[in-house]
Amino acid sequence: MMKLYELAGRDDAVRFSPYCWRIRMALAHKGLWAETIGWHFGEPGLPNGYKQVPVLVDDGEAIGDSTAIALHLEDSYQNGPSLFGGEVGLAHARFIVAWVDNVLQPALLPLVAPAVLKQVKSSAEAQFRAAREKRLGMSIEAAAQEQEMHLPAAQAALVPLRAALAGADFLGGDEPTYADYAVFGAFQWARCAGGPEMLAEDDPVYAWRERMLDLFDGLAREAETAPN
Amino acid sequence: MMKLYELAGRDDAVRFSPYCWRIRMALAHKGLWAETIGWHFGEPGLPNGYKQVPVLVDDGEAIGDSTAIALHLEDSYQNGPSLFGGEVGLAHARFIVAWVDNVLQPALLPLVAPAVLKQVKSSAEAQFRAAREKRLGMSIEAAAQEQEMHLPAAQAALVPLRAALAGADFLGGDEPTYADYAVFGAFQWARCAGGPEMLAEDDPVYAWRERMLDLFDGLAREAETAPN
Repeated sequence: MMKLYELAGRDDAVRFSPYCWRIRMALAHKGLWAETIGWHFGEPGLPNGYKQVPVLVDDGEAIGDSTAIALHLEDSYQNGPSLFGGEVGLAHARFIVAWVDNVLQPALLPLVAPAVLKQVKSSAEAQFRAAREKRLGMSIEAAAQEQEMHLPAAQAALVPLRAALAGADFLGGDEPTYADYAVFGAFQWARCAGGPEMLAEDDPVYAWRERMLDLFDGLAREAETAPN
Repeated sequence: MMKLYELAGRDDAVRFSPYCWRIRMALAHKGLWAETIGWHFGEPGLPNGYKQVPVLVDDGEAIGDSTAIALHLEDSYQNGPSLFGGEVGLAHARFIVAWVDNVLQPALLPLVAPAVLKQVKSSAEAQFRAAREKRLGMSIEAAAQEQEMHLPAAQAALVPLRAALAGADFLGGDEPTYADYAVFGAFQWARCAGGPEMLAEDDPVYAWRERMLDLFDGLAREAETAPN
């Protein structure tokens, strides 16, 4: 049986890592099931010496890094629907993932970090705070006080996503692909950690997020969320 | 024979439109040749009442809009190498094109607009200036005086491109696709109009641009450029 180690909150049922959500959705896309095991910031105990989640253990092999895990699933489970739609689909998806990692998630971080901080156990708070505040360039409390200031930057970051989704149901076209899961992970991070709403209901990104939440019998919609 | 109407400068041999370069490269990718016809801002005379270039005339049919032209080439010339690598490759490429249109080109505009202005004929200067200054939020002269201020924003916009190209020769993987041509169009716009250099030689984007300039026997490298 596959095991997926994923980030858990103070409430162990709250699983908010954007990278882990990429893999949760990718597993469901392939029709696969994994036992999920909660892991907290700063804890030891990940297989194979990994220091970060997600880690997937499949047939005794431990694989870290979300993109590497997705590639493993694509290669090993070719009977399931494709995550990437072939070599070019994969190559183009790498740009979208790079955009999520380097633009989207950093733009959302000031909005989400205050909520995430509440999910970090006291023993790991100092480490979490130091790493996030370095990225933020300010204290998490300062970010929390200036949510309205950060919203326009987050909205601006969404422009290419909004444009791409204006003409298609998913970034993958008629059906979602790993590119959708990579982008969706950022929104599910905000949702599960109890972050603020960032989308207006008439935003094409909102409608897309609704479609993502509906996938796989509401897998993401039914996930435990921390209180706002 | 195909005809491609494309934007020309005061020197008719200078062809600097980023959208037209997408199609020049896409035609070469498919092994196709078109007669290119220079058109200047504000001129009448485009087929089928189109108001903007590129316009491709193929077998008596006039097609406008660079993405529509690329899709026409992909559908009509299936013997040539694919521009999109299938349905998912195309869907993912739409995000990359949206990023170029909405993020990359606007970030480069303050750097490139002063050079482009010199290529616009006097009769169209007022119209060109009004449209660009609205997008810039400042006069073209102000943009020209603050080139060093705009360079960091342009560099920041390149981050996801740089990350994606760190692990691959092209956005399409081992071979370029239309996604590469869409991004490259922005750099060729800067190059042909005589804009400033934006890339350091140790930047993976620089090495990628060199590869793009080498494609098709140096098609883009040998294009006429305006003086700096």
